[in-house]
Amino acid sequence: MSQVKKLLALGLAIATVAIATPALAEEAAKAAPKADAAFLFNTLLFLIGGILVVWMAAGFAMLEAGMVQTKNVSMQCTKNIALYAIAGLVFWLVGYNVMYEGVDGGYIGSFLPKDIPVPDKDSGDYATSSDWFFQMAFCATAASIVSGTLAERIKLWPFLIFVAILCGVIYPIVGAWTWGAGFLNKMGFLDFAGSSIVHSTGGWAALAGALVLGVRRAKFHDGIITPLPGSNMPLATLGTFILWLGWFGFNGASQLAFATNIDASAVSNIFVNTNLAAAAGVLVAIVLSQLLYGKVDLTFALNGALAGLVAITAEPLTPSPTMAIAIGAVGGAIVVFTVPLLDKLRIDDVVGAIPVHLFAGIWGTMAVPLTNTGANFTTQAIGVGAIGAMVFTVSLVLWVILKFTIGIRCTPEQELKGLDITEIGLEAYPEFK
Amino acid sequence: MSQVKKLLALGLAIATVAIATPALAEEAAKAAPKADAAFLFNTLLFLIGGILVVWMAAGFAMLEAGMVQTKNVSMQCTKNIALYAIAGLVFWLVGYNVMYEGVDGGYIGSFLPKDIPVPDKDSGDYATSSDWFFQMAFCATAASIVSGTLAERIKLWPFLIFVAILCGVIYPIVGAWTWGAGFLNKMGFLDFAGSSIVHSTGGWAALAGALVLGVRRAKFHDGIITPLPGSNMPLATLGTFILWLGWFGFNGASQLAFATNIDASAVSNIFVNTNLAAAAGVLVAIVLSQLLYGKVDLTFALNGALAGLVAITAEPLTPSPTMAIAIGAVGGAIVVFTVPLLDKLRIDDVVGAIPVHLFAGIWGTMAVPLTNTGANFTTQAIGVGAIGAMVFTVSLVLWVILKFTIGIRCTPEQELKGLDITEIGLEAYPEFK
Amino acid sequence: MSQVKKLLALGLAIATVAIATPALAEEAAKAAPKADAAFLFNTLLFLIGGILVVWMAAGFAMLEAGMVQTKNVSMQCTKNIALYAIAGLVFWLVGYNVMYEGVDGGYIGSFLPKDIPVPDKDSGDYATSSDWFFQMAFCATAASIVSGTLAERIKLWPFLIFVAILCGVIYPIVGAWTWGAGFLNKMGFLDFAGSSIVHSTGGWAALAGALVLGVRRAKFHDGIITPLPGSNMPLATLGTFILWLGWFGFNGASQLAFATNIDASAVSNIFVNTNLAAAAGVLVAIVLSQLLYGKVDLTFALNGALAGLVAITAEPLTPSPTMAIAIGAVGGAIVVFTVPLLDKLRIDDVVGAIPVHLFAGIWGTMAVPLTNTGANFTTQAIGVGAIGAMVFTVSLVLWVILKFTIGIRCTPEQELKGLDITEIGLEAYPEFK
Repeated sequence: MSQVKKLLALGLAIATVAIATPALAEEAAKAAPKADAAFLFNTLLFLIGGILVVWMAAGFAMLEAGMVQTKNVSMQCTKNIALYAIAGLVFWLVGYNVMYEGVDGGYIGSFLPKDIPVPDKDSGDYATSSDWFFQMAFCATAASIVSGTLAERIKLWPFLIFVAILCGVIYPIVGAWTWGAGFLNKMGFLDFAGSSIVHSTGGWAALAGALVLGVRRAKFHDGIITPLPGSNMPLATLGTFILWLGWFGFNGASQLAFATNIDASAVSNIFVNTNLAAAAGVLVAIVLSQLLYGKVDLTFALNGALAGLVAITAEPLTPSPTMAIAIGAVGGAIVVFTVPLLDKLRIDDVVGAIPVHLFAGIWGTMAVPLTNTGANFTTQAIGVGAIGAMVFTVSLVLWVILKFTIGIRCTPEQELKGLDITEIGLEAYPEFK
Repeated sequence: MSQVKKLLALGLAIATVAIATPALAEEAAKAAPKADAAFLFNTLLFLIGGILVVWMAAGFAMLEAGMVQTKNVSMQCTKNIALYAIAGLVFWLVGYNVMYEGVDGGYIGSFLPKDIPVPDKDSGDYATSSDWFFQMAFCATAASIVSGTLAERIKLWPFLIFVAILCGVIYPIVGAWTWGAGFLNKMGFLDFAGSSIVHSTGGWAALAGALVLGVRRAKFHDGIITPLPGSNMPLATLGTFILWLGWFGFNGASQLAFATNIDASAVSNIFVNTNLAAAAGVLVAIVLSQLLYGKVDLTFALNGALAGLVAITAEPLTPSPTMAIAIGAVGGAIVVFTVPLLDKLRIDDVVGAIPVHLFAGIWGTMAVPLTNTGANFTTQAIGVGAIGAMVFTVSLVLWVILKFTIGIRCTPEQELKGLDITEIGLEAYPEFK
Repeated sequence: MSQVKKLLALGLAIATVAIATPALAEEAAKAAPKADAAFLFNTLLFLIGGILVVWMAAGFAMLEAGMVQTKNVSMQCTKNIALYAIAGLVFWLVGYNVMYEGVDGGYIGSFLPKDIPVPDKDSGDYATSSDWFFQMAFCATAASIVSGTLAERIKLWPFLIFVAILCGVIYPIVGAWTWGAGFLNKMGFLDFAGSSIVHSTGGWAALAGALVLGVRRAKFHDGIITPLPGSNMPLATLGTFILWLGWFGFNGASQLAFATNIDASAVSNIFVNTNLAAAAGVLVAIVLSQLLYGKVDLTFALNGALAGLVAITAEPLTPSPTMAIAIGAVGGAIVVFTVPLLDKLRIDDVVGAIPVHLFAGIWGTMAVPLTNTGANFTTQAIGVGAIGAMVFTVSLVLWVILKFTIGIRCTPEQELKGLDITEIGLEAYPEFK
């Protein structure tokens, strides 16, 4: 075909199309449903990210089941599956709205359940439900942190009541302050995927609980500390690997978009930094435990990975890989130095969740200005302080109320025999005795 | 600006097509391979969904390994990896064709293996192989259900023979009736992701097997029931979390498309409803077990989650979140009430698969008309009945044939000593005695 | 709008476009970030594939934790999480550059860390970091293989030093030879996802280590072989399921693109072939173990799956499903026949990694010409030989150097008491004795 013919035909075609465009477009919109690549990619990011963060619930369950004594393993499993269920239900009932809808005053929103839109009414850059799903999974994470610290002595139902309030109100208020366009956001506080908003929140709630609940009698007695080793190290290791994997969704999908090349590159960089920070946390933890104690400690290695992950969570995008390694490495060191410190302070944290999620979370949040020029130390410190003050105070009050009403602590006899037999009547490994 | 660009692009495209279609299209096909976003998104949905459903095979393996006694754990692992392997092989050999190709008469198709098309001949809205992969994983699920019920007393090879027939013929025929455009589809029977087609099919086959195989001697003897607690509760918990995770693929990818905004919103709504139904199943199961028995039962919590998931599977899209919670909650209640019922009827279901997959599956199927105006109770009941009658009858006949030919049940001595030592010669935990 | 007005507008529009196109395009590029569907799909493939391959690190950890004796389980967990961390760090420090950047001479590249590009400078068909992430996960796999073979007797730190060199230098050089456009690539050697490049590399390094390290005293003594059964079969089964799942990413994302229908169909076909090869490996392993030993052996079933997966890895795309089944089946048979052979040769391979990754890897590599007309047996043999000669020799030298400097083997007393108590001071199951 000659060029001229092609050009001629082209002109004719364009004329035809151009004339008929508005009418045609309208008709086409009726005939074929909208297929917006950005909408699809963003929604996919939320769904895949959400699945990975949901998977973290299993990771916490396995980590905790491995770190408690045999006599409390079934209870720990029960708490973990129940807390994930309750987190989802209260986040549907009130949490999401508190966090994103009623943030004019900074915190409390409509307590009516948010209706999920019918698909063809879903406008915006992603499916609303995919965002809900992703955010719900985050909310459950905060509760899992509390579960680990308070293991082996807290009763089931008061724990679940606390979880409902933490996931339905406390965490969503903290979330609203920053991610819901509240006052911390307006001040310029930066916490990309939630070192403070998710992890420190869980950590503060756990710390308040540990103070009100008290220590395990078998570990702290007569002024001496008797280590109570976890019952199943491969399960704890599996839990850590699951959490590491889930964190790619936690941090990666917190980019909130996969619609442009820049977004996709950003998510990829976040994956690399997240992995390197965790790796550095492991390496520092095993090297330090070798140097300080003459032996590599597996639980330090596992918690070192998690602390590296928590530390990079506040800003996984702007650091160079080298800086990500440095940030994660400090996280690993925090674990090695503060786990024994808590013991000295007679704060009983069964799985080491306070060092990992609270201390490394604060470190990560304060490290944001090191690589992100949009952040400054003062604002970061205000954010850390505000979140800490609110979550710790409210949690403390709640734990005290629960303590003096329905009671939160099992009896000394239950503690001795284990919660599996005495509270839920089901041993974890009935034949291994 | 962008309007102008769009106009230009549109004009060019139409001009090209209008004038030069045959020659140019051929040339273009040679120069640049087709890149159709809908094809890519749909294929991605099947692949990711398929991976998640494959992962459920591991979930069933862990759930069952945790719920059987120590002496039968290696055997249960062997059965689970073997059944997944065999399911894939027979679904390649005959299953897929029975289900989707030869459905003119409603069920039996060509028994020749379907050739996988060479990539550049793959037309349609998704890659054929991605659909095969997704459907294959579904097929394996049905077999896993049977494995749990019949544990601790069935011999390995007859079980695997049954699996081959279930996955190669029985399940594909059931699938063809609805998803393969067979008579139930024509009647208007609706079963979105297979509460009946997958879960009840597995449940009916398991029930037939349990009746022919008989009860475990150690549990039912002298008119009394002795509970035989599972050997490893954290493994059972892990299995449940894996299944919960996999179910996002099971239900979500059953939308079968991710090519438009409506599809993506639908998949997202399905994720939310699936999660809320499972959560409600857990909550109802623990509350009811507390009220009825004075103790929360972890196995009820786990099976409550699964029953909630099975119940929402027949229609995860049309319910509002509130309705999804209600549907899942009833699933959880079914577990609490029917697990003891089966014991009374002396039907020995080791992991509770019949309540979870059969009873909650029937409930979910019958609940479709509550939210989907395209369904009606009569047709749903016909579907439930037709599937039940066919699967139960054929399975019963098969089990009886297997019983009176090669035998299906291990000897009393094998049952006492455990299948691990006596049939496969490998203990699961050789050092924990 | 009247027809006349439309025509007028059209004329103006066309004129505007024709004149202003270059300027407009430039402006548009500034205003709206680039959103190239191919870039997004390819990046997504690498990220999802990478996550699945990272998950394999957990699979190896569980497989090995289940296959060693109780007294060495914590150590095995420690080795696995540490090796994954170190693999990532050295692959960042030198590995990736050795493999892809400095390949002019075929192997050694710049030892400077590669800077991760800022997102908006990322050109090409995918995000650079997503490729790094995917390749890093591959590199860790090779190290995991070594870990399994040398379990229960190698000291922690020398093992980790070997891992650093394997992942930072040895594996990247092998990778550069083919995937980095080195001499094997130029010769036409084909190894799609790394039967030789990843799996045999790990296998050769493991074999060299096993020869230098020697056998476990408790297994080989006084001329007789005493089997030392693994301590936890469900964990080993879980590990195998995880690896099977991860392999969809390993092979599928090695297509390296998901940008066209052909790519998507290819990835889908790879999924199907990968699954069928593994399934065939299981079936052949259980049938052969039944025929040869009168009993089905679970460890053969698990290793059969893995050998099928390794075998199909060299070419998962060109085989028909029937050929994939055949290739995987031979893999399964290799396991059944060569595991006892290694025992006879007094090569102590705790988990069977040498049969699975080295022998089945060679088989898979040599089988490529059976289905891919672009390959020939001579070149494939040269590749197998070159990789084997280099990796085995360098590894042997390294192991010998480590042996005669810091020492690689624990003392007989440590071996007897277990590495958990004597080297890391943490029992895996402290209460199960």
